[in-house]
Amino acid sequence: MTVGDLGEAALIALIRSQVPSAPRWVTTGIGDDAAVVAPMRGTLDVITTDTQVEGVHFERALLSPSDIGHRTLAVNLSDLAAMGATPRVAVLSLVLPPSLATADLEAMIEGLLSLATAHDVALVGGNITRTSGPLVLGVTAIGAVRRRRILTRDGGRPGDELWVTGTLGSAAAGLTWLQQQQAGHAPADQEPRQGIQSYRRPTPRVRIGALLGRNRVARAGIDLSDGLADGLHQLGQASGLGALIHGSAVPMAPETVAWFAHRQQHPLEAAMTGGDDYELLIAVPRSHRRRLAAIQRLSHGVPLTRIGELTKTLDLVVRTETGDLPVPAGYQHFQDTVSSPA
Amino acid sequence: MTVGDLGEAALIALIRSQVPSAPRWVTTGIGDDAAVVAPMRGTLDVITTDTQVEGVHFERALLSPSDIGHRTLAVNLSDLAAMGATPRVAVLSLVLPPSLATADLEAMIEGLLSLATAHDVALVGGNITRTSGPLVLGVTAIGAVRRRRILTRDGGRPGDELWVTGTLGSAAAGLTWLQQQQAGHAPADQEPRQGIQSYRRPTPRVRIGALLGRNRVARAGIDLSDGLADGLHQLGQASGLGALIHGSAVPMAPETVAWFAHRQQHPLEAAMTGGDDYELLIAVPRSHRRRLAAIQRLSHGVPLTRIGELTKTLDLVVRTETGDLPVPAGYQHFQDTVSSPA
Repeated sequence: MTVGDLGEAALIALIRSQVPSAPRWVTTGIGDDAAVVAPMRGTLDVITTDTQVEGVHFERALLSPSDIGHRTLAVNLSDLAAMGATPRVAVLSLVLPPSLATADLEAMIEGLLSLATAHDVALVGGNITRTSGPLVLGVTAIGAVRRRRILTRDGGRPGDELWVTGTLGSAAAGLTWLQQQQAGHAPADQEPRQGIQSYRRPTPRVRIGALLGRNRVARAGIDLSDGLADGLHQLGQASGLGALIHGSAVPMAPETVAWFAHRQQHPLEAAMTGGDDYELLIAVPRSHRRRLAAIQRLSHGVPLTRIGELTKTLDLVVRTETGDLPVPAGYQHFQDTVSSPA
Repeated sequence: MTVGDLGEAALIALIRSQVPSAPRWVTTGIGDDAAVVAPMRGTLDVITTDTQVEGVHFERALLSPSDIGHRTLAVNLSDLAAMGATPRVAVLSLVLPPSLATADLEAMIEGLLSLATAHDVALVGGNITRTSGPLVLGVTAIGAVRRRRILTRDGGRPGDELWVTGTLGSAAAGLTWLQQQQAGHAPADQEPRQGIQSYRRPTPRVRIGALLGRNRVARAGIDLSDGLADGLHQLGQASGLGALIHGSAVPMAPETVAWFAHRQQHPLEAAMTGGDDYELLIAVPRSHRRRLAAIQRLSHGVPLTRIGELTKTLDLVVRTETGDLPVPAGYQHFQDTVSSPA
């Protein structure tokens, strides 16, 4: 059975049957002209929207329907985390080719709802329509943050230390392997398992993001959806500062380093320019190191690595064994002269 | 120049240059991971999302780019009005074919922003991506409403009078004429000008919707995006009631009646099943007639017409000169036996 076999009302009923009952603060949930939600006392609304387009952001051959649902919400929760906000509600826009199997739609919703439930996010509404084109999934997510606890991109000061969560480059390695496998030439013994998992089901840094905002430990933050290099450019520009990154400090999983080295690709370059990691980059005053360590413990041990610092000079520099090099633009490539820090 | 010639950053810069500066209560606007907005004191958040897909909801041959932008926001503001909410912010998701002219994108944004400005709605963020498929525009709009002032679909009681704003069937007449004109056989002397305008640039009932909620005049409400018949089904079902509609009372513009009659199509049928009018259907206790009249004056004379009442019996009935008939399903058609009420 495909979604084209069902009418809009039947599709909505199918989705509603999967959605758990809404929390008390959702006054009106799915099924009216709009949802009504009571704000959290004393907080501001943090709003983000992100759309995933088949053939641009994902290929159905590389991701399961459940992965697609998970990712669509994850990228939005990552944006809220980067603002120091606690996510609360989401609305979903589905633009579906009639040939999509109903079971695949159910699996997408399951993937999205399973991540939503893990973070106490209520799906309160949405919209469903057909298309003659590719599958498009859009989510708008809304979170809460207290005034003066917002983690914007422009709050960095010279000397602030730059930290990142998790490891970088994993999702890029995973995606490359999946693409090669699809093309029929991926060496099975080099499968970057962790990277494939990172690509398919990224973990938005929801808890540590909210803690970093709430405790005023970080002065600026951004999520690394488009890679570390892009994040540095954005945060540097917004704060009116430059940055010095210690190439050897950029955290990478051993399998990621091995994977890129085997492909004769520079691991640091790959880790800096590869996107899809959904880790956070934050600027933290040196004096807050202890509080940062406390927050790391509270967030159940999310890895945190200091990779450099913000500088008065506007340049974005990566210090490597062979000298200082400019941070590459978002998806541009390093020069050949960069040596491996590994 | 097309959007494919510009990178994402340049497109975002183009759009930002069109957006007026945000009001004070927008703490963080376009340009960070998410927007931050201070809620209106003592209110709940009302959230709606709606997506317009080329080839499904609109044809670029029938609408100007500015119309497309206007409609994309209008359909969302209409949903907020139907909840009795005052709109405040919107985020926009753009899924663009690379062949789209940059000038057309600018005109779409202009159409959207011009309606936004008219209703003090701030565009606080969004998302832009390319697609190999049709143009897709999505808006999530957020409004404010006080607790116990929400206009849901389920608040109707037996005996409540049913009222509609404006006239019905106009947009359906306009759309049909535009489609015929495109096919090369639209009689120029029968052009339903008002209907074409209604279809191209629908007027969401923002002010009267907010007033109806704020003053607790209406007990239930819904917008008629999918037509009166569909609205009656939805409101009746949610309230657990039926309705009796007086066919001759359903408000139609003279040009609409003439247009459909000329086509040998039943005007009442067309007005009940045709969508795209974005008028409101409300249930008002008989005792509130005076307050309703006061609200009509406050809303600068939006036409309000009593078309029937809610009933204990679950049937949805249209009373016509030739007898009582069931209200048709959303987009289904009347039987031939229905006579014109005109």
